[in-house]
Amino acid sequence: MPAEFSLIDAIARRAAARDDVVLGIGDDAAILAVPAGRQLVVAMDTLNAGVHFPEDTAAADIGWKALAVNLSDLAAMGAQPAWCTLSLSLPEPGAGWVDGFLDGFLTLAALHGVALVGGDTTRGPLSVCVTAHGLVEAGRALRRDGACVGDDLWVTGAPGDAAGALAQWRAGGERDAALRARLDRPTPRVEAGLALAAVAHAAIDVSDGLLADLGHVCAASGMGMEVELDALPASPMLAAAFDPGQRRVLQCTGGDDYELCFTAAREQREGIAVIAEAVGVAMTRIGRVVPGDAVVALECDGRRWDPPRRGFEHFAD
Amino acid sequence: MPAEFSLIDAIARRAAARDDVVLGIGDDAAILAVPAGRQLVVAMDTLNAGVHFPEDTAAADIGWKALAVNLSDLAAMGAQPAWCTLSLSLPEPGAGWVDGFLDGFLTLAALHGVALVGGDTTRGPLSVCVTAHGLVEAGRALRRDGACVGDDLWVTGAPGDAAGALAQWRAGGERDAALRARLDRPTPRVEAGLALAAVAHAAIDVSDGLLADLGHVCAASGMGMEVELDALPASPMLAAAFDPGQRRVLQCTGGDDYELCFTAAREQREGIAVIAEAVGVAMTRIGRVVPGDAVVALECDGRRWDPPRRGFEHFAD
Repeated sequence: MPAEFSLIDAIARRAAARDDVVLGIGDDAAILAVPAGRQLVVAMDTLNAGVHFPEDTAAADIGWKALAVNLSDLAAMGAQPAWCTLSLSLPEPGAGWVDGFLDGFLTLAALHGVALVGGDTTRGPLSVCVTAHGLVEAGRALRRDGACVGDDLWVTGAPGDAAGALAQWRAGGERDAALRARLDRPTPRVEAGLALAAVAHAAIDVSDGLLADLGHVCAASGMGMEVELDALPASPMLAAAFDPGQRRVLQCTGGDDYELCFTAAREQREGIAVIAEAVGVAMTRIGRVVPGDAVVALECDGRRWDPPRRGFEHFAD
Repeated sequence: MPAEFSLIDAIARRAAARDDVVLGIGDDAAILAVPAGRQLVVAMDTLNAGVHFPEDTAAADIGWKALAVNLSDLAAMGAQPAWCTLSLSLPEPGAGWVDGFLDGFLTLAALHGVALVGGDTTRGPLSVCVTAHGLVEAGRALRRDGACVGDDLWVTGAPGDAAGALAQWRAGGERDAALRARLDRPTPRVEAGLALAAVAHAAIDVSDGLLADLGHVCAASGMGMEVELDALPASPMLAAAFDPGQRRVLQCTGGDDYELCFTAAREQREGIAVIAEAVGVAMTRIGRVVPGDAVVALECDGRRWDPPRRGFEHFAD
């Protein structure tokens, strides 16, 4: 069992460098150089064992996901990821577990050029807290409060997969590995967020469930939304594993997908198609911004559909 | 039991504003304006129930301490605190507990003009993770790696009090309230750190134990240190509650004091006395930087003294 300081050394040895990291792991705090004209974007999310991932999740997947959920927040702001800090609470760390954790964490960090610059290791129930720092051109961040009446409503990728994997895991029967990968190794839509910053009016990442998260955009923007249920994209594996009724619930209320939902003017449709092609991520129009204050999900005949619940809330679950 | 979003609303309502917070609590991430010519200093520390504070600690004290340990890291860098994020994991939050927690957290934040700009709330064993952001003039941060041979070694305040309180709590006998306050409500030496940035060569905060933490400075600076045991300041309550032998162990190896240790050239003695007076914090010379790579504690007759252990390490304890 490694002592804290050798654990920190082990982490420091594997952390990548960046020119704007003046001082990384190993002092009381990190020192970072923010370029002139850029604003700092800061997100912080914690994953707790048994709450945010099944207890049997591989160490590398936990590492990946802990960073992914934070990079997803930066993506939803249209920010370029730069640095992160990591606080790791472990009951009884085997060096092997930490190595596996770092495999996942640092693989994703390297994909986005993110430097791990600090944090701490503590004894406690398994918990991973990450703070991610990104940069945006001053005044150009994507926010939740910019949706306008008449905007199209869009989603990247196919929501519902992660919730489908969780439903299969809970049921204990047949489990689809591709769905499970979407739960364990979500793809933060960083490039999509960066490209969309120029054309979208408002954005959020789908972490708590599509309708619940769109509700936050409505509240921040002082708008309502109509979601066309038949327009919601479904992945082939979700379509294969769940009947249409189940699928709809997963798509509308399932958390943990980390797709982006965003609104943009109708004139941007062509531009968004170009962006989707350029970044290699499907972008689907699923509704529109309307006057009001609520998210309404509509059947193809215009009838309103109410899900059994809006999304996942910690403490309320 | 409040749901997550009403809990976040409750926190957001109480968070103070700053002009450089472009966007605070309530979006996917915060947006912050770093002034030109300043570098960003980032510290992250977690407190877990039963590990970093006794289970019977008051909510307000946990809130205070969770921020204090992070501001102490900024102080050790000579940084001006600016913003923080908070991740709160709670098993079953009563609104009363969260209010109490915020009383302590936000009282300390207000004392230093720190804005709480984001974070998250999750379900899990009680754990508090904070990331603190500070600012320094570019190139002017205090680091661990600047100690020079011949430097004086200094400490602020009186180390050992927090460990004394913990020893009393563990023993279950008589407990000194003033010692316990030093454990529960440590004072981050922010003003001292800011003033010392101009004169000190190296600094660290005493979180793991004086000798252990000085060892980190030695390792970073490629130096050795001699600590004069009889020069170590003791508070009146520590002196009253423990015999000289016990006291010495507490002073040298006790964690959680959050005093600053720093090194400075002999020529700065007068300047440091002026700073100590100005910020109202005692600063005591306790030794010197020497060639070598180890911290040696010396009796008044020059004999070397070895403590039963160097300090507190998570996982190794």
